Amino acid sequence: MRQNPMRFGLIGTGRIGQVHAANIAANPAAELVGIADPFIDGAKSVASRFGGTVTDSPEQLIHSRQLDAVLVASPTPTHVELIEACVDAGLPVLCEKPIDLDIVRVDALRPKVAASGVPVALGFNQRFDPSFARVHMRVLAGEIGELEHLSIVSRDPGPPPASYIGVSGGIFRDMTIHDFDMARFFVGDIIEVSATGARLFDAGAREHGDFDTAVVTLRAASGAIVTITNSRHSAIGYDQRLEAFGALGMLQVGNAQSSLVSYSSASSVEARDPYIESFIERYTQAYALELDEFIKLVRGGQSSSPSFEDGRAALMIADAAQRSAEEGIAVSIASALPIAN
Amino acid sequence: MRQNPMRFGLIGTGRIGQVHAANIAANPAAELVGIADPFIDGAKSVASRFGGTVTDSPEQLIHSRQLDAVLVASPTPTHVELIEACVDAGLPVLCEKPIDLDIVRVDALRPKVAASGVPVALGFNQRFDPSFARVHMRVLAGEIGELEHLSIVSRDPGPPPASYIGVSGGIFRDMTIHDFDMARFFVGDIIEVSATGARLFDAGAREHGDFDTAVVTLRAASGAIVTITNSRHSAIGYDQRLEAFGALGMLQVGNAQSSLVSYSSASSVEARDPYIESFIERYTQAYALELDEFIKLVRGGQSSSPSFEDGRAALMIADAAQRSAEEGIAVSIASALPIAN
Amino acid sequence: MRQNPMRFGLIGTGRIGQVHAANIAANPAAELVGIADPFIDGAKSVASRFGGTVTDSPEQLIHSRQLDAVLVASPTPTHVELIEACVDAGLPVLCEKPIDLDIVRVDALRPKVAASGVPVALGFNQRFDPSFARVHMRVLAGEIGELEHLSIVSRDPGPPPASYIGVSGGIFRDMTIHDFDMARFFVGDIIEVSATGARLFDAGAREHGDFDTAVVTLRAASGAIVTITNSRHSAIGYDQRLEAFGALGMLQVGNAQSSLVSYSSASSVEARDPYIESFIERYTQAYALELDEFIKLVRGGQSSSPSFEDGRAALMIADAAQRSAEEGIAVSIASALPIAN
Amino acid sequence: MRQNPMRFGLIGTGRIGQVHAANIAANPAAELVGIADPFIDGAKSVASRFGGTVTDSPEQLIHSRQLDAVLVASPTPTHVELIEACVDAGLPVLCEKPIDLDIVRVDALRPKVAASGVPVALGFNQRFDPSFARVHMRVLAGEIGELEHLSIVSRDPGPPPASYIGVSGGIFRDMTIHDFDMARFFVGDIIEVSATGARLFDAGAREHGDFDTAVVTLRAASGAIVTITNSRHSAIGYDQRLEAFGALGMLQVGNAQSSLVSYSSASSVEARDPYIESFIERYTQAYALELDEFIKLVRGGQSSSPSFEDGRAALMIADAAQRSAEEGIAVSIASALPIAN
Repeated sequence: MRQNPMRFGLIGTGRIGQVHAANIAANPAAELVGIADPFIDGAKSVASRFGGTVTDSPEQLIHSRQLDAVLVASPTPTHVELIEACVDAGLPVLCEKPIDLDIVRVDALRPKVAASGVPVALGFNQRFDPSFARVHMRVLAGEIGELEHLSIVSRDPGPPPASYIGVSGGIFRDMTIHDFDMARFFVGDIIEVSATGARLFDAGAREHGDFDTAVVTLRAASGAIVTITNSRHSAIGYDQRLEAFGALGMLQVGNAQSSLVSYSSASSVEARDPYIESFIERYTQAYALELDEFIKLVRGGQSSSPSFEDGRAALMIADAAQRSAEEGIAVSIASALPIAN
Repeated sequence: MRQNPMRFGLIGTGRIGQVHAANIAANPAAELVGIADPFIDGAKSVASRFGGTVTDSPEQLIHSRQLDAVLVASPTPTHVELIEACVDAGLPVLCEKPIDLDIVRVDALRPKVAASGVPVALGFNQRFDPSFARVHMRVLAGEIGELEHLSIVSRDPGPPPASYIGVSGGIFRDMTIHDFDMARFFVGDIIEVSATGARLFDAGAREHGDFDTAVVTLRAASGAIVTITNSRHSAIGYDQRLEAFGALGMLQVGNAQSSLVSYSSASSVEARDPYIESFIERYTQAYALELDEFIKLVRGGQSSSPSFEDGRAALMIADAAQRSAEEGIAVSIASALPIAN
Repeated sequence: MRQNPMRFGLIGTGRIGQVHAANIAANPAAELVGIADPFIDGAKSVASRFGGTVTDSPEQLIHSRQLDAVLVASPTPTHVELIEACVDAGLPVLCEKPIDLDIVRVDALRPKVAASGVPVALGFNQRFDPSFARVHMRVLAGEIGELEHLSIVSRDPGPPPASYIGVSGGIFRDMTIHDFDMARFFVGDIIEVSATGARLFDAGAREHGDFDTAVVTLRAASGAIVTITNSRHSAIGYDQRLEAFGALGMLQVGNAQSSLVSYSSASSVEARDPYIESFIERYTQAYALELDEFIKLVRGGQSSSPSFEDGRAALMIADAAQRSAEEGIAVSIASALPIAN
Repeated sequence: MRQNPMRFGLIGTGRIGQVHAANIAANPAAELVGIADPFIDGAKSVASRFGGTVTDSPEQLIHSRQLDAVLVASPTPTHVELIEACVDAGLPVLCEKPIDLDIVRVDALRPKVAASGVPVALGFNQRFDPSFARVHMRVLAGEIGELEHLSIVSRDPGPPPASYIGVSGGIFRDMTIHDFDMARFFVGDIIEVSATGARLFDAGAREHGDFDTAVVTLRAASGAIVTITNSRHSAIGYDQRLEAFGALGMLQVGNAQSSLVSYSSASSVEARDPYIESFIERYTQAYALELDEFIKLVRGGQSSSPSFEDGRAALMIADAAQRSAEEGIAVSIASALPIAN
């Protein structure tokens, strides 16, 4: 029997909120019934394109009794409160990463989420990218034998505004956290973190004591080693690569190119058109598939949605990386942070 | 001032008709108001997804007085009649290629189209593919100097049913015609055609005296030489490549790959996931951009839509290729066909 | 038991003669014992580097009774006479291509070569290029199924002097002849030739009625079609590619690059350093392996050296291509030329 | 005026000694006059191929008064003693890396080398690889702007015997030392080292407390960060890549492939033939160019030969890496090791 579309409320209508709105509207299994944003013009604009009622109050939306699920795309400091409100209301929630910048607040919420049985998923969209997912599947299938080394390169086209850097929680919690989740996706539990950061070009990073360039080495319980390379800028476009090396071979994900064109001349050959610049374009399919998996999760089926625990684990690694970069020591995950009972 | 959406009637709801329906529905400058197909269930199915009234009579749709333009995606034998009806009704028309399999019928329609002033565009969608278009633009910009040789490779994943082969007009009029148009797009007027065909694997081609493999050499008035390589099958997926060689360099369009993944092992390295199989996926953007250009054409703006004359010219080359392949001579375009007054 | 090195006489010390001299000197199974060149300073220079006595008389060298075999790298018009002298002297000969520009002279020599039993090999070095040879082997192994289409691209970095063009026999006999042999290597007997030539940039070609750009389509007895694309210039370096397409897949040989470096910037990505420019660098291994095979041939072992008959067959195709390009007809090989009995 | 060939003595005739012997013999500016190896059959075998007298006593060779320079390719424990003997004899020496496994011994030798004025070069051959050298030159030329991140991947086809592991000094001093030198070549002084090692597959590494897999992060005085990835095995062949990322772009060195062939089928496309397996084949040109530079150094010209100090600096980084991997701390180079006066 065909099911009714799942009725979504969307909280937050910034760039990423708009992506989710479009995906909900385009997904035959979903319906956008309500939009909340204190910046009401943002909510109205999204509603005019994708439907749904508008309100400036997330709480009002959550308690509207018209929803089957909530998608939280509001600023990070609101996440804990909104997840809690959804859980209290019995509403499944797909929340953008990170849960919070403060592991203490995350751990305070943790028991309630665990006890509630309400589905809570974290927006680690990159797990759903078809190329990353395909490599993951092929690693599991044994194509490279035992995974020994995973290399993740993630560089943004340009740094965010200095004002954002100031509230971002730092590069590890803000940017690398995607890579920490990807690392866990591939190698499971992380037991040791060594991070090195540098301030090479971004005034915002310098002003706020953050790094604009970082390298992180993770050791997994499996024995595998993970290397993550980050930069807040990349002249060549959005640089998102992954390389899984094992006893039998190597699987790689290259960058997405903006065309199928290459150019050869006397000075160089087979020069490709630039990589795409936008994370939204790069992860278009990933966001749509993330929504599909969340819908499956809510409906009780098999789902690969990252969980609240996944969100917490990535934050713990980020905290360890921050400490490692500051203190010049390898930080073991067990020692870094108290595990909430 | 913002204009009202252009009201489209769609004739034909087969695979390609459905692509056009989706594009019209998704284009903010267009609206799908009516759908005609003698196979009424096809029309109904499309209407249920993309809107519009339905009828089994194309004539009725054309004369409904609700249309600003018509998109003809019905079988080839109906094209001449439908273009004529649209022109008589003063309705701009975007017609799938070819105009007809018989140059005599095309030439009979030609004066009316020319005299009418009604915009008639041919669906040579590949001109709008962003990669082909980008190479075209860069050739014009002089990046490779004088264009001396153009190579087009076009291979379909698999042959059509034998029944289709029988009414297709042969590989040159049915399949190579896209490449003939692409050749003209790049090098302008063609003056000589040499074609070689073979029947290597397809029972349908053998049964109907058609070729399943073909190579065509064109000589342009500019002096440039064009090589076209066709096959009705391709185990490696949809093979659509172009290479423009000139005095200063070379521009190439490679195949579209199904992922960003590559695999290295002891037996081979950097093996990419297969090419995509579907022409619809390969030319998704091209179809959408084709529609944009047609809308511009109808609104009287600058447009690069291929014209009725472009459709006729490609058919003349196809006829010459057929004769060349059968008789083993290089056929000059001027001598091959009577030019309609 | 280890054999004594084969004692070679070298006739001709131009660019290609020097390549052969170096290979004979470096090959533990060969020894350079004598060098003949009417330009005696050339012979002396080669002897000073690689050993051997010198003479300005090829005949004297051939009859010196010190040789086991002769390598002919002198100008084309001398080939027939020198092969004949070697055969008369019972000396195996490896002769640079082509045998001659005139099939009548080749056919006049043919019965003597056939009757003599003396090994005569033609210098179609490209058969021995490890990449081409590997594709050939993999095609035979069935990796692409039945070979349906073979594409050969061969473009020289720059045109030869006009004076050379005048005595070259034309692009088909001088340059394409390598590709005709490669075609026969892959698809066997050729039954039909269609050629198109153009004069686009080279004053020498225009002056002597030759082409600087050519495209040839061959039909093989097997049914396979071959496309050859030639140019006398290539801004991107030495362009030597091959593509074998079959029912199950495709094997390609790309160009040799001058380094392992690629460069990505805001304007393009993965731009490789240029292709190598020199045929000697491109075919270094091929020339050495060609010599190995010739030595095997002389010693009576299994050998893949191209024969006098291979040299003749390539010239017949070249003649057919010349006629096809001039007359605008597909020329069948059987009808083109009388087969010497 | 043309100089006499430089008369070389070679000490050590193992695999790498043989490479040097061949290069000395092939270099018109050098001559192999004497060979020393306690394993006298090795010396004899090399002499029979490349010339020179033989002795089982390195000291005898050094004091033979027939040499202009010495090439030391004997086992590592002999290097300090042999360098010292050469310096005492006033003979320039090109010594294979590392100088020694013990920095104390290196520092003991250091003042004598510095005071002597005798040219002492270290065999960091990879600096001379044309691709690495070309990237180095292009980085200096500013093509990528300020160098921010350097990634070096170095994986051997297979692990050495367990017996060798036991005397190798560990992966950092034995294998990574090449990468440490390459890092210094690109970014200059290193100030901090963080290393992570793992024992994942090699029984020899496990037996001797060594690592078979390692990742090292270096911080340069310039601010740049370097990542080095090592493995003692690589199913895909010899994996030697470098990536220099800067504000304006990226330069990469890829792996050397064993042919120009690629294969496409229904399951994957553009699969290349495997990478080459042998470091000797990969670095053929590098070894020859290393010798050229050493000859220039001895002759007093401009030379880029790595010095004794370069050899010492790489060892200091290796020591720091070893300590970092064992203790889980970032080791600053200044603090790690006493700098010899």
